[in-house]
Amino acid sequence: METLWGARYAHRTHLIQSSIIREILKFASDPDVISFAGGLPAPEIFPVDGFKKAFDTVLSEHGPEALQYSITEGYIPLREQIRRHTARYSIDVSIDNILLTSGSQQALDLLGKIFINEGDRVLVEAPTYLGAIQAWKVYGATFTQVEIDEHGMCPDKLEAAMRTGPKFIYLLSNFQNPSGATTSLERRKQIIEIADRYGVPIIEDDPYGQLRFEGEHLPPVIELDYQMRANAGGHYDGNVIYLSTFSKTLAPGMRMAWVIADRAVIRKLVQVKQGSDLHTATILQMATHEISKDNFIDEHIKVIRKVYRERRDLMIDTMEECFPPGVTWTKPQGGLFLWVKLPKGVDAYEMLDKAVAKKVAYVPGSPFYANGGGENTMRLNFSNANEEQIVEGIRRLGDLLREELLDLSPTD
Amino acid sequence: METLWGARYAHRTHLIQSSIIREILKFASDPDVISFAGGLPAPEIFPVDGFKKAFDTVLSEHGPEALQYSITEGYIPLREQIRRHTARYSIDVSIDNILLTSGSQQALDLLGKIFINEGDRVLVEAPTYLGAIQAWKVYGATFTQVEIDEHGMCPDKLEAAMRTGPKFIYLLSNFQNPSGATTSLERRKQIIEIADRYGVPIIEDDPYGQLRFEGEHLPPVIELDYQMRANAGGHYDGNVIYLSTFSKTLAPGMRMAWVIADRAVIRKLVQVKQGSDLHTATILQMATHEISKDNFIDEHIKVIRKVYRERRDLMIDTMEECFPPGVTWTKPQGGLFLWVKLPKGVDAYEMLDKAVAKKVAYVPGSPFYANGGGENTMRLNFSNANEEQIVEGIRRLGDLLREELLDLSPTD
Repeated sequence: METLWGARYAHRTHLIQSSIIREILKFASDPDVISFAGGLPAPEIFPVDGFKKAFDTVLSEHGPEALQYSITEGYIPLREQIRRHTARYSIDVSIDNILLTSGSQQALDLLGKIFINEGDRVLVEAPTYLGAIQAWKVYGATFTQVEIDEHGMCPDKLEAAMRTGPKFIYLLSNFQNPSGATTSLERRKQIIEIADRYGVPIIEDDPYGQLRFEGEHLPPVIELDYQMRANAGGHYDGNVIYLSTFSKTLAPGMRMAWVIADRAVIRKLVQVKQGSDLHTATILQMATHEISKDNFIDEHIKVIRKVYRERRDLMIDTMEECFPPGVTWTKPQGGLFLWVKLPKGVDAYEMLDKAVAKKVAYVPGSPFYANGGGENTMRLNFSNANEEQIVEGIRRLGDLLREELLDLSPTD
Repeated sequence: METLWGARYAHRTHLIQSSIIREILKFASDPDVISFAGGLPAPEIFPVDGFKKAFDTVLSEHGPEALQYSITEGYIPLREQIRRHTARYSIDVSIDNILLTSGSQQALDLLGKIFINEGDRVLVEAPTYLGAIQAWKVYGATFTQVEIDEHGMCPDKLEAAMRTGPKFIYLLSNFQNPSGATTSLERRKQIIEIADRYGVPIIEDDPYGQLRFEGEHLPPVIELDYQMRANAGGHYDGNVIYLSTFSKTLAPGMRMAWVIADRAVIRKLVQVKQGSDLHTATILQMATHEISKDNFIDEHIKVIRKVYRERRDLMIDTMEECFPPGVTWTKPQGGLFLWVKLPKGVDAYEMLDKAVAKKVAYVPGSPFYANGGGENTMRLNFSNANEEQIVEGIRRLGDLLREELLDLSPTD
């Protein structure tokens, strides 16, 4: 009955696109395929027992309250906890600056809802997080993309791009998805200065900031913005909208994340969240508070960092051994992803069929470019596969790459 | 820093409105206020122990899988269970006809996202569910409202309203929120016929259908539509988009609901849900499946029906005793709400301040009219307050109403 939908129901199909990653994950569901395609954390280190206790405690101590409707803004003790966590970065916010969301994906959607009218422009890094493109296209966004290098967006290019009149700047400051790049301290300050001069807010998406396993911690853009302003009264009224999540420090299946922003922005977000899902499930908010209240995350994160670092190192060591000359990659100091550049002329998207035939999967880089580009790039996830799978998968990928590069070589 | 938001960030404020109910619930948060304002189920009968066991079992048996990312469509065993439940109504759907959502509110939002372009018209009952108006206004919907009587929308009025060219018809078939009205069997058939003739889908929102405590069960509109079509192959490809939820049969704080629709509609909804929140929390879907898998709901619902019926009866008995002549009300055969009509000239919205001063709260009826009306109506919830509160709250409201009607009387 495609006809009924197609012929009868006029709709905005042109704005809706399914995620390429989603399609790839379907291919990769074959258990024999070693997948570096998803963005999945390592399930072996999820705190299953901790959550078991947390749900039990919450239901024992709060009873029906944990199962009843609750306020759209989010469970106050969990917002208090995030407030205290934020204060560690010397950012003195109030709980009125904080909204709990059903994953950062929901925060992106709600921001699209309050900011974007059909045809509005959004400034993004190239490459950028695919889920943000998907969330905002549905509201009719068009994109201005600014190429990044290993230190993030270049201020000259950003300045030029600002003349396209973007509604906001979208920035993944730490161990960016997909490239693994981190915006340098100097660039962070320059970006704040430019955004402020043009009167345009920055959306700082920071799911991986706490997953740094080497190098020095950099202050989030919101912290630098906070310091530059004379904020008073324990509120944040600045220009940065900061997103973070429990998905990478506890578990993504809980879909618990938060936004920190100007109180007026939070009020607008609360209004649209109410129309979107009333509120995030009460029991999830309470259980997240329960498991994390005694600095559990601080300890747990050490385990995550250790495992991810080992996996990154193993992946890079194996790549050095197995990948042919002409292929390069980033070495991120944290996060879940690294980024591979193939010689010009190799199309990672077209190569994917052959990879899946060899029982290995990745995500081609081009979908991460809002306006095209990156045909010779791919994203590899190093957090999910175990040691054995990493070695074997990278070997398979190395074999494929050697075959492809051979095909490219001049025959005479 | 209202100025930063106001002056710098152009946005769609005119489309965003906070729910009046939300504002009223804030007034009513005073513990001395007896509130008939919310739509809250009775927390005393939430299956707290059942959920405690369910979360424990899920984490013990599934471990990390319960905490990992999962597919947007929803947990397959829970969709299978809903499929079997639906088959009881002789509707043979496949799991590809079913999407799990974060409450029915999310389903309304996603439907708005795929159907509504700025200026599109939506046909709603008058009065109708406030959350639907709120969800769809943000996408630029305008409304055609069709007045209802105790049997739902009158076909003549619906037929006339169809000429405004609505994108879809929104119908709360059973114990409608806010009025408690149920669309009669004959009207259901007439509405299907009209919708089909105009080629317009029906969104049937049915959160309360299982909460019938007297009278005869009526087949949902989707069941009647299914019977009228020659469906084959175990799929539903009809014209009705059916919403239901676990909020009223298990617990609303879980935010678990579902949509049944044409597979092409489900595919579109899955695409936009992905951009909205990736998926509903994995553990909630598994725990909902676990608690409800052995027909638990069938037994539990008997308790709910008994309690709600007693409370409805007590509320109506007390109204008969305490409300002055000229005030009338509905006697719904199920659900959570009844609807009070005051004499013309009494404005329930204006009267609310005085009610809160007397420590009793309700929701004035006018916000439930998409295009205005119902100033002399109010919605009363009978599921949440206990027996003592119902008697005392209705007495306070009766006192207020007598004072108001006295003021209205001619003085000469």
